[in-house]
Amino acid sequence: MNNFNKVLVVSPHPDDETLGAGGTLLKYKKQGHKIYWLNITDVNEEFGWDEKRIAHRQEQIEAIRGFFGFDGYYNLSLPTTKLATIDEGDIISKIRAVFDDVQPSWVLIPGQYDAHSDHRIVYNCCMAAAKSFRSPYIKRITTMEIVSETDFGFQNERFVPNLFVDITEEMDKKLEAMKIYDTEIEEVPFPRSLENIKAHSLMWGGYCNSRYAEAFCIVKQIE
Amino acid sequence: MNNFNKVLVVSPHPDDETLGAGGTLLKYKKQGHKIYWLNITDVNEEFGWDEKRIAHRQEQIEAIRGFFGFDGYYNLSLPTTKLATIDEGDIISKIRAVFDDVQPSWVLIPGQYDAHSDHRIVYNCCMAAAKSFRSPYIKRITTMEIVSETDFGFQNERFVPNLFVDITEEMDKKLEAMKIYDTEIEEVPFPRSLENIKAHSLMWGGYCNSRYAEAFCIVKQIE
Amino acid sequence: MNNFNKVLVVSPHPDDETLGAGGTLLKYKKQGHKIYWLNITDVNEEFGWDEKRIAHRQEQIEAIRGFFGFDGYYNLSLPTTKLATIDEGDIISKIRAVFDDVQPSWVLIPGQYDAHSDHRIVYNCCMAAAKSFRSPYIKRITTMEIVSETDFGFQNERFVPNLFVDITEEMDKKLEAMKIYDTEIEEVPFPRSLENIKAHSLMWGGYCNSRYAEAFCIVKQIE
Amino acid sequence: MNNFNKVLVVSPHPDDETLGAGGTLLKYKKQGHKIYWLNITDVNEEFGWDEKRIAHRQEQIEAIRGFFGFDGYYNLSLPTTKLATIDEGDIISKIRAVFDDVQPSWVLIPGQYDAHSDHRIVYNCCMAAAKSFRSPYIKRITTMEIVSETDFGFQNERFVPNLFVDITEEMDKKLEAMKIYDTEIEEVPFPRSLENIKAHSLMWGGYCNSRYAEAFCIVKQIE
Amino acid sequence: MNNFNKVLVVSPHPDDETLGAGGTLLKYKKQGHKIYWLNITDVNEEFGWDEKRIAHRQEQIEAIRGFFGFDGYYNLSLPTTKLATIDEGDIISKIRAVFDDVQPSWVLIPGQYDAHSDHRIVYNCCMAAAKSFRSPYIKRITTMEIVSETDFGFQNERFVPNLFVDITEEMDKKLEAMKIYDTEIEEVPFPRSLENIKAHSLMWGGYCNSRYAEAFCIVKQIE
Amino acid sequence: MNNFNKVLVVSPHPDDETLGAGGTLLKYKKQGHKIYWLNITDVNEEFGWDEKRIAHRQEQIEAIRGFFGFDGYYNLSLPTTKLATIDEGDIISKIRAVFDDVQPSWVLIPGQYDAHSDHRIVYNCCMAAAKSFRSPYIKRITTMEIVSETDFGFQNERFVPNLFVDITEEMDKKLEAMKIYDTEIEEVPFPRSLENIKAHSLMWGGYCNSRYAEAFCIVKQIE
Repeated sequence: MNNFNKVLVVSPHPDDETLGAGGTLLKYKKQGHKIYWLNITDVNEEFGWDEKRIAHRQEQIEAIRGFFGFDGYYNLSLPTTKLATIDEGDIISKIRAVFDDVQPSWVLIPGQYDAHSDHRIVYNCCMAAAKSFRSPYIKRITTMEIVSETDFGFQNERFVPNLFVDITEEMDKKLEAMKIYDTEIEEVPFPRSLENIKAHSLMWGGYCNSRYAEAFCIVKQIE
Repeated sequence: MNNFNKVLVVSPHPDDETLGAGGTLLKYKKQGHKIYWLNITDVNEEFGWDEKRIAHRQEQIEAIRGFFGFDGYYNLSLPTTKLATIDEGDIISKIRAVFDDVQPSWVLIPGQYDAHSDHRIVYNCCMAAAKSFRSPYIKRITTMEIVSETDFGFQNERFVPNLFVDITEEMDKKLEAMKIYDTEIEEVPFPRSLENIKAHSLMWGGYCNSRYAEAFCIVKQIE
Repeated sequence: MNNFNKVLVVSPHPDDETLGAGGTLLKYKKQGHKIYWLNITDVNEEFGWDEKRIAHRQEQIEAIRGFFGFDGYYNLSLPTTKLATIDEGDIISKIRAVFDDVQPSWVLIPGQYDAHSDHRIVYNCCMAAAKSFRSPYIKRITTMEIVSETDFGFQNERFVPNLFVDITEEMDKKLEAMKIYDTEIEEVPFPRSLENIKAHSLMWGGYCNSRYAEAFCIVKQIE
Repeated sequence: MNNFNKVLVVSPHPDDETLGAGGTLLKYKKQGHKIYWLNITDVNEEFGWDEKRIAHRQEQIEAIRGFFGFDGYYNLSLPTTKLATIDEGDIISKIRAVFDDVQPSWVLIPGQYDAHSDHRIVYNCCMAAAKSFRSPYIKRITTMEIVSETDFGFQNERFVPNLFVDITEEMDKKLEAMKIYDTEIEEVPFPRSLENIKAHSLMWGGYCNSRYAEAFCIVKQIE
Repeated sequence: MNNFNKVLVVSPHPDDETLGAGGTLLKYKKQGHKIYWLNITDVNEEFGWDEKRIAHRQEQIEAIRGFFGFDGYYNLSLPTTKLATIDEGDIISKIRAVFDDVQPSWVLIPGQYDAHSDHRIVYNCCMAAAKSFRSPYIKRITTMEIVSETDFGFQNERFVPNLFVDITEEMDKKLEAMKIYDTEIEEVPFPRSLENIKAHSLMWGGYCNSRYAEAFCIVKQIE
Repeated sequence: MNNFNKVLVVSPHPDDETLGAGGTLLKYKKQGHKIYWLNITDVNEEFGWDEKRIAHRQEQIEAIRGFFGFDGYYNLSLPTTKLATIDEGDIISKIRAVFDDVQPSWVLIPGQYDAHSDHRIVYNCCMAAAKSFRSPYIKRITTMEIVSETDFGFQNERFVPNLFVDITEEMDKKLEAMKIYDTEIEEVPFPRSLENIKAHSLMWGGYCNSRYAEAFCIVKQIE
C-alpha cells in the first residue's frame, strides 16, 4: 500500500475533483486511505443564481460526497469567477485552516496554467499555504488535469504530467460519478463528455503501460 | 483569397490595434474581408482626465475608424489601468457578447507577457471567451506585437511569432494611421516612433522573405 | 479550399507520416491538393536486418504510397538510429534538394522534443533547409504528434499544438492505413495501437469542436 | 570601482532587502556607492496587528536603516498581502515617483515567480515603472533570491541567476543584519535561518569561484 | 517502507552516483531495498590515460562498491567525452540490456541540461530505453543534481527539483564516500568540495523541512 | 570605463563576430580595452571549396583583423558544418587553450538556439570550457544575436537579450565592416543585408533608449 494515507483534493468549483482525480480518489479509498474534499467557490442567490439551480448544485455535492465516501468535506463558498477581487491573504488563511484540520499527506490542486482565473488563484493560494515549514505533514502536492480548463488558456506553457495512476478498475465508476453532474456534461465534441474523459484516460494509459490512467504533475514530493 | 472572412482586433487601449495589426487589417480589408474593432478600456472625467484630452481621444478613435473602414466598432469603456480590480467574469461576459455578435473567424489579441497588466488581463479574458465549444466560429486566435509593451516586462518569456504577414504594400499607410495618434508617438529612441515601427517590420520581413511584415503568434488555428 | 496546394510530409522512419498526419494527408488529397512523402532512414542488410524483414518493409512502403495516392515519393535511405553520426551538412543538402524539387507550400516534420534522436536531428535539418531566404515557396512548417515518440523523452518541454485539423471523415481511413504497418502496431496499452490513435484524435477534437482531429504545431506560417 | 553609483533595493516587506541583497548592499556602500531602500507594504492597526508588534517592526526598520547606512529610505506603507486588490496604476505611479527622486542606476527587485503574490505584483509594477523611455537613468534591473519565497511557488519556472556578487568579506555582517529581524528568523530547517542563508551563499560561491556569493538575475542591463 | 524495492543509479562517470544520490542510496540500502550501479564511461590507455591513474580509478570504483554495498554493478566502459561520436542506437541497446537484467523500479539518471555532453547523451539514451511499453518494471525515473555539471551549462533551463529525500542521518556517510574519490574533490570554492556538497544538502533541506536533503526531478512516476 | 578589459569574441564561422558584436567590439577598442577573435571553423580544399574561394576567405579574414584592430587572433580551422562528428572533448580542450592564453574578462559566443548546429556546439563547448573553477578570469559570458541564424531554428525557445550596448557612434563603421564580407551580404529581404542589420540595431535601441544598440544575453556575470 502506498504511503499517502490522507488525500485531500481541492476543487475551485464542484466537479473539478471528479474530472481531475475521480479515479485516483476511488482507488485510494478502496485501498484504505482516507480521502477529503475542499471546495473553494460556490453559487448563491446574491450572485444571480436562481433558487432551483442552487438547490440542484447542493444535491449534486451531496450525491458526490456519498458516491466517493469522502471522510471529510469543506466548502469555503467563495464567489465563483470573483476570486481575483478577494484579498489573497484571506483565501490562504482559510485554506491553511483546512490543511491544519485534515493534515493531509497528499494534496491535489488545479493547475497554474488553467484557462479559468479561479483555478490559477487556487493554485497560488494552495502553494503559499503548503510551504513545508508551515505544513510539514504534506508529503506530496500535485496538479490535476481538468478537461475544459487545463490547456485551454496559455500558449507556451502546458500541463506536463509526471505522475500516472492506473485507474483501469475505476474507469467506469469515475464516469458514473461524472453523470451526477448532469448539468455539466454534454456529448462529444464538448470536452466534458464521458467519451472525452475516457479518451484522455486511455491516452495517459499509453504513457504508463495501463489501459486507463489519470495524469498529475508532482510539484513537490518529500520522502 | 485567405479563409478568414471576418477579422476582429481587440485593443486594450486605442492605438494597440494599429501598432499590432495595422498593416494586416488594411491588407485584409483591401482583399475584401470584413474587419472589426473591439476596444476594452477608455478614459473619462471620473478617472481624472480633462475634457479636452477626452475629446481628442474620441476624435482619434473616429479618425481611425474611418481610416481603416472598420465594418464594426465596439468599446467596453472599462477604466484604463484598473482591469485587475474588476470581476473577471464580467469582462469575459462582455467580450463574449461581442464575439457572438460579430462571429469573427480570426481574433487578434494582446500578448500574455506584455508589460501592461491591462494587456495580460485582456489576453486571459479573450482566451476564456474564445473556448472552441463556446465560440465555434473562431478559426484562429493570435497575439500581436505591440511595441512599447510587448517584451518590456517579463524576463524569461518572450513574444515568439509563428505567423508573418507581408505588409510591404501597406507599410506607408500603417505609418499614416499611426500619425493619427499624434499624442502617442514620439521620435526615436522612443519605441512608439514611426522609424521604430518601420524597423520592426523590416526585421520581421527578414524572417519571411518580404520587405515589410507584421508578426503574430498563433495560439490556436482550426482547419 | 485551403491555400497550401503542395503538402510534403517528412518521416524519420516509415509509419511516422501516417501516425502524425495520416488523416490530414487524406483530407488534403481529397480536396485536390497534391501530397508528397519524404522518408529519411531505412533498413538494409548492412545494418543487420534480414532479407525477409527488409522485403516486408518495402511492401509496406509501396502499400502506403498507393493507399494515400502520394503525388511524389523520396527516400534518403539513411541508416536508422545512426543520424547523429552523419555530417549534418550532408543531410541538410539532401533535404534541400527534395524541397527544391517539390517546392512544397506546407512541410510537416517530426518534433524537436521527440524521444528518438533521429526525430530531433530531422527536425533540426529540416528547419535549416527551410529558411525562408532559401526556400521561399514554403508557406508553412509544422511539427506533428507521433505517438510513442512525441512526449516520451523530454521533461520540461512538451508538444504544444496550435493547429487542429478536423479529420472526422478520415478517421477510419487513417486507422486502415495504420493496419498496413502490421509490424508496428499492437494492442492497448501499447501507444501505437488503433484504439490509442483514435483516443488521441477524439481528445484533440475536444480542443477544436470536432469529433476527431489531428494536432500540429505551427513553427512558421507566411501569408 | 563598478559603474552603478546609485543602488536602490525594493522590498515587498521589510527583511526582503537583507535576505536578497544584504551582502551586496554592504559591499557597494563600502566601495563608496550610494544605497537606497524602497519598502512597499507595511503593517498597521487597521489590518489587525497589535500596537506592540507594529512598534517592534518600526524599531527593526530603523535599526536596519542605521546598520546599512542607507542614503535614502522610502516606505509606500501599502497593506501587506492585499496588493492584488489595489489599482496597479496607482502602485506604478508611486514607485515611479521614488525612481524619479532617487534616479538609481541599479534597481533590485523581487522575482516574478516568488510564492507570495505581493512579490509578483511588485515585480510587475517595478518593470512597468522602469521602462527605459520613462526612466533612462536605470542601467540595470535585477531580481533577487529571497529565501522562503523564491522557488517556493511555481513548478516549471525557477529563479535562474546570471549575476554573482562575491560577498565573502560581507558574509558575517549580512548575518548580523538578519539578526535584527529577530521575529523573522528561526533555526534550521526553517529557510530563514542563519545557517541556511550561509549555505545558499556558499553554494552560489561554487558557481563563481568565491567562498560566499549572492545571486541575482539581470533582467536588463544597459552599457 | 517505500515501494521502490530495486534502485538503479546511472553515472556517466564514476563519482556522479555519489554526488547525485549518495545519501539516498545509503538510506534505501539501510531500509532493505536493493541498490544497483550502472556506470557508462571509463578511462583506458587507448585514450591517453597512464597506467597508474587507471589503476587508481579501478581502486576507487571497488572501494565505492564496497562502501555502498551495491547489489549489482555494471560498467559499459564507453570512452569518456566521446559519447556524441558513438551510434546512439548501440548505447540504448546496452542500457536496455542492463535494465532488463536488473528490472529496477526506480532509475536515477543525470540531467538533460548538465554542462557535460556525456551527461546529456546518457539522459537521452536512458529515456529512450525506459519507455514504459519496453520496460514496464520501471515505476520511477528521476534526474539527479550533480554539482559541477548541473546548472553549469544552459542559460534558460535549470534543474527544477520536485522530489526531496531527507538524508540527515546519511549526511556524514555521503561525505565519507566522496573522500574515496580523492582525485575529484578539492577545497571551497571548488564545487566538488565537501563543504559545498553539505551546503547544497542543507539548502534543499529548507525546501522540505529536514536538516539535510538530496533533490531529484521526477520525470515519470507510475502508481 | 567599463571593467571588462579583455574581450574575446568566438565565431563559429568568419562574419559571426561582426554580425553579432561588431559595434560593441569597435566601441570597446576605442575605449582602450583589448579585443581578441577566436574563429572555430574554416573552409579548405579537402571539403570541396575551390582555391579562389579559399583565398578570398583568407583576404576577408585579414581585412577584418585590420579593420577592428584585434589584439589577438586564433583560428581552430575545424571543418564547417561537421562539428557534430568531432570529439567534443577535443574541441573543448582547444578552446580552453585559447582561453588560458588570452585570459579574457568577457567572452562573446553564439547562442544555444541558433539554427546552425555548428553554433549550438560552439555554445556548448564554450560553456564547458568557461566553468568558473577552470577559467576564473572570465567575468562575463554572453551570447550574441547573429542574424540569419539566431531565431531561425527553434520554436519555443528564443534569443532573450538582457544586455544592450549603445552603438550609435559605431553603427556606420559596423556596416563598413560587413561590406568586407561581400560574399555573405545581399539586399533586403535577405537577413544578412545592411538595411536589416541597421533595423535590428534601431529596434534594440528602442529597448534601451539609444538610437542604435546591439543586444546580448548574459549567461553569467561575476562581480
